[in-house]
Amino acid sequence: MKLVIVGGVAGGASAAARARRLSEEAEIILLERGPDVSFANCGLPYYLGGEISERERLLVVTPERMKERYRLEVRTRTNVEAIDRQAKRVRVRDLASGREYEEFYDKLILAPGATPIRPPLPGIYLPGVFTLRNMQDMDRIKEVLDRGVRQAVVVGAGFIGLELVENLVRRGVGTTVVELQDQVLPPFDPEMTTPVADHLAAKGVVLLLGQSAEAFEASEDGLTVRLKSGHRLPAQLVVLGVGVRPENKLAVDAGLEVGSRGGIRVNEHMQTSDADVYAVGDAVEVKDFVTGEATQVPLAGPANRQGRIAADHVFGRDSRYRGTQGTAVVRVFDLTAALTGASEKTLRRLGRPYRKVYIHPTHHAGYYPGAQPMTLKLLIDPGSGRVLGAQAVGGAGVDKRIDVLAVAIQAGMTVFDLEEAELAYAPQYGAAKDPINMASFVAGGLLRGDHPQVSVEALADANCPVEGVTRPFLLDVRTAEEFAAGHIPEAVNVPLDELRSRLGELPHDRTIAVYCQVGQRGYLALRILQQSGWQAANLGGGFKTYRLYAERDAGVFSAGNCGRVR
Amino acid sequence: MKLVIVGGVAGGASAAARARRLSEEAEIILLERGPDVSFANCGLPYYLGGEISERERLLVVTPERMKERYRLEVRTRTNVEAIDRQAKRVRVRDLASGREYEEFYDKLILAPGATPIRPPLPGIYLPGVFTLRNMQDMDRIKEVLDRGVRQAVVVGAGFIGLELVENLVRRGVGTTVVELQDQVLPPFDPEMTTPVADHLAAKGVVLLLGQSAEAFEASEDGLTVRLKSGHRLPAQLVVLGVGVRPENKLAVDAGLEVGSRGGIRVNEHMQTSDADVYAVGDAVEVKDFVTGEATQVPLAGPANRQGRIAADHVFGRDSRYRGTQGTAVVRVFDLTAALTGASEKTLRRLGRPYRKVYIHPTHHAGYYPGAQPMTLKLLIDPGSGRVLGAQAVGGAGVDKRIDVLAVAIQAGMTVFDLEEAELAYAPQYGAAKDPINMASFVAGGLLRGDHPQVSVEALADANCPVEGVTRPFLLDVRTAEEFAAGHIPEAVNVPLDELRSRLGELPHDRTIAVYCQVGQRGYLALRILQQSGWQAANLGGGFKTYRLYAERDAGVFSAGNCGRVR
Repeated sequence: MKLVIVGGVAGGASAAARARRLSEEAEIILLERGPDVSFANCGLPYYLGGEISERERLLVVTPERMKERYRLEVRTRTNVEAIDRQAKRVRVRDLASGREYEEFYDKLILAPGATPIRPPLPGIYLPGVFTLRNMQDMDRIKEVLDRGVRQAVVVGAGFIGLELVENLVRRGVGTTVVELQDQVLPPFDPEMTTPVADHLAAKGVVLLLGQSAEAFEASEDGLTVRLKSGHRLPAQLVVLGVGVRPENKLAVDAGLEVGSRGGIRVNEHMQTSDADVYAVGDAVEVKDFVTGEATQVPLAGPANRQGRIAADHVFGRDSRYRGTQGTAVVRVFDLTAALTGASEKTLRRLGRPYRKVYIHPTHHAGYYPGAQPMTLKLLIDPGSGRVLGAQAVGGAGVDKRIDVLAVAIQAGMTVFDLEEAELAYAPQYGAAKDPINMASFVAGGLLRGDHPQVSVEALADANCPVEGVTRPFLLDVRTAEEFAAGHIPEAVNVPLDELRSRLGELPHDRTIAVYCQVGQRGYLALRILQQSGWQAANLGGGFKTYRLYAERDAGVFSAGNCGRVR
Repeated sequence: MKLVIVGGVAGGASAAARARRLSEEAEIILLERGPDVSFANCGLPYYLGGEISERERLLVVTPERMKERYRLEVRTRTNVEAIDRQAKRVRVRDLASGREYEEFYDKLILAPGATPIRPPLPGIYLPGVFTLRNMQDMDRIKEVLDRGVRQAVVVGAGFIGLELVENLVRRGVGTTVVELQDQVLPPFDPEMTTPVADHLAAKGVVLLLGQSAEAFEASEDGLTVRLKSGHRLPAQLVVLGVGVRPENKLAVDAGLEVGSRGGIRVNEHMQTSDADVYAVGDAVEVKDFVTGEATQVPLAGPANRQGRIAADHVFGRDSRYRGTQGTAVVRVFDLTAALTGASEKTLRRLGRPYRKVYIHPTHHAGYYPGAQPMTLKLLIDPGSGRVLGAQAVGGAGVDKRIDVLAVAIQAGMTVFDLEEAELAYAPQYGAAKDPINMASFVAGGLLRGDHPQVSVEALADANCPVEGVTRPFLLDVRTAEEFAAGHIPEAVNVPLDELRSRLGELPHDRTIAVYCQVGQRGYLALRILQQSGWQAANLGGGFKTYRLYAERDAGVFSAGNCGRVR
């Protein structure tokens, strides 16, 4: 067996190591265009910011170590130029010497990765305009930073963009983020990113949402980024973080099938349309585990597992890739944001039925010092109660809840199962009713019909004048002090503990939308109202959830906003 | 519906609140012997240590708040003396006035909790000898501490015992722990507690394992604790943490069934042998979710859920309790120890087949600063690959992995599923191959036969002279430096990267037991050896696992230890 692997970072390196463990006899050749194999892509921003101080730490495995330990033929700075599938050989170019040669294969694994997108804008290739994908990109940016940068512009507020922003600020660089969408962290639902945007502002980052760069121009002082809005941003450093595109040229040229967004098509064994050619990692199109749709998710974890599966199948094993959930996490200064499974916007785009709940717990028991707040959103299949997706933003413990929910989604668990989840509780770690249980109680109550909810969007819609339809009566059951400190327009305050004795003040001819701070008192109020004969619904996640929308759009409940709050 | 609830802490308070949400009409009476309802039991040690500085924070809900918000009849300092099941009434005693009266019920929920055990030893009721179960216990201990304690003895190294120890040390009290078993934290397997014992010693705690108190005597300076071993420990404070026993007197007197260890027997709706009487919380016998055995697990989470389920069933809902997994976590100074599901010793006691794996990962990517080590042990069903139990000890991220595994156990997931778990990875939170994946890869390899393992115990057994049986050749594939710094007796060192070229040095007539530091290099070495014709096995978890045993027993591989290493 002669196995040739193209690309030596996450997926390629995993495939090579797995292949050797499965066969001592196989000839395994790993061809990598760059100088490094298996470097820590996700660590690059932290070397720039100085948290990781030694460059070598990012080199997970050196080519020498891979050669020695796994008895691989590792050739770095080596480009594969073409695949001849009939003859089962690749044309290879040694980038140092320029020498070209051919290499036959029995099986070929493509792990070429993805390339950062450079939109075709004037000045996009000016010195000082960078992307950040590999060690060389990092070195170039570091050099500029070390020479002294006062102002930087990061184009794109995705995961890598915001990680970079944090590290630029850490170095004292005045940083502006320009993002085309009207939210940061596009995989998240917009309202869940409100705390992140607020936090960036609190850290002195200038955030320009819904804006895009039009051109980059050299200036006396470095560069000027010209936005479509007319803004002109001076900078000595510009980094583009607007996404990646699969490196599919080799595959396309060889006639292998690719998907509509350019990802190489593979089956569950990671075989391309040619059974002797596998593809793994950021270059492939994968199945979304929750929705079943074809998608592209450039993540290190899936890439590693795909490499392992491809190697397994090469050596006759029936390993299968189950699809990608899109589980991801990012730290943005002191906040953590994480998600898994389908987002609300994806479900809406696909027209899938769903229900959603929000809770705003602390990550551990409130009586123990240091409990940090988080917001957790669950998306649920209304029929079965299966968890479809989850998002969380907050402090400590966010990653834990999303990991638990990631496994629950994988197992096809329902919120009814998760009401009964038995999680570890001591005051430093959780609560007797963990946020996972609490979110599931809320969702379970919703699906069982015990706990009718209204969303901020539905409430905003209901506020829009429709002839013959009476708007719901908006009841705030928080204390008078909480109400005075801020409430939803037109709400009437009757504190929960007075509700039973003041039911007479409520209109009998209107449905009641009740809310409290996070939903818990609202739930009890709802139960009281329902059992006293009212049609009522609780605002999901309470005033805190309303604020997630309202801070994005001051007029969330105004007539001008009708049908627009999403 | 008139519902009477006996006991107002975790299970009772949950039942009461749930009952009111289900019915505005029901008459709900909550009778609590103590002065508080729903206090934060798990926070008591931290108030003693000063981390929680306000006593009121421990009162999760006051009786007044419960009355007001849930419209309950809450009577504290009220003891239920007897149940008349025929007449469906309880005899109640107001502890303040001494008045006795009767209260009829339609349904009765018993949530009496458990009482700390006071072994019948001389001096056990001396002033200065305490248990720690409720706010009053805490107040009494606090008073003694505030008067000044130089030396304390904690009897029992369970969860509460060690939490208390940490807080005594925090206050500068010289603390000795006396534990009957030969390990701390008895729910854990002994080798997993080695790091905890080491850590306690490093913090200056005197740990006396396998010892027990024989008597407590008053002395000039306070107390003397006399041990069976003859040791005499001076102390101004003694706290007993030797377990709890279910408060079952009321149930037993009323003729309700109890289990062999005294827990009130209930069905999955939490009904006792009398369908109108429910019981929840620490007083009941529950089903072990993994083994199916009857057990008693005094934990707040299960108590809360049981209270909810009982209330549901009272109001006609089909809620069922699925059993308890024993998921628990404890912080001991800078360490976290957590577990879920069955332990190895439980599986062995029940004669259940199992396999086990150990890994010693860091909680996040090693290239990012601050990665803390942990040891993770998985127990697996050898036939199906289902996870039966998990234990972890280490720094940050221990609770996360156990929570993920707790949900995986609930869902009946296998290690083959968990090889494909997609968990959140960014350098601060995890790794592209998370410890969950890594442990599952090891376990999967073991079950698939790719990765034969030998345990420390089996290796110790193999080291015991048996006529006609050749001992395995013990091969250490770490570097020469690692080998020199410490190795298993009789091991021969051939570093992994030299193994392929030095195969000629290995005996062909013996099986080979190979090991490295944590198991990873050993695995590759094993694959090389297997494919070169040897019968070989990898020491599960490598030298680090060996050390977990060896630090407990210096002669782990000596002939005198034969059959004893468990």
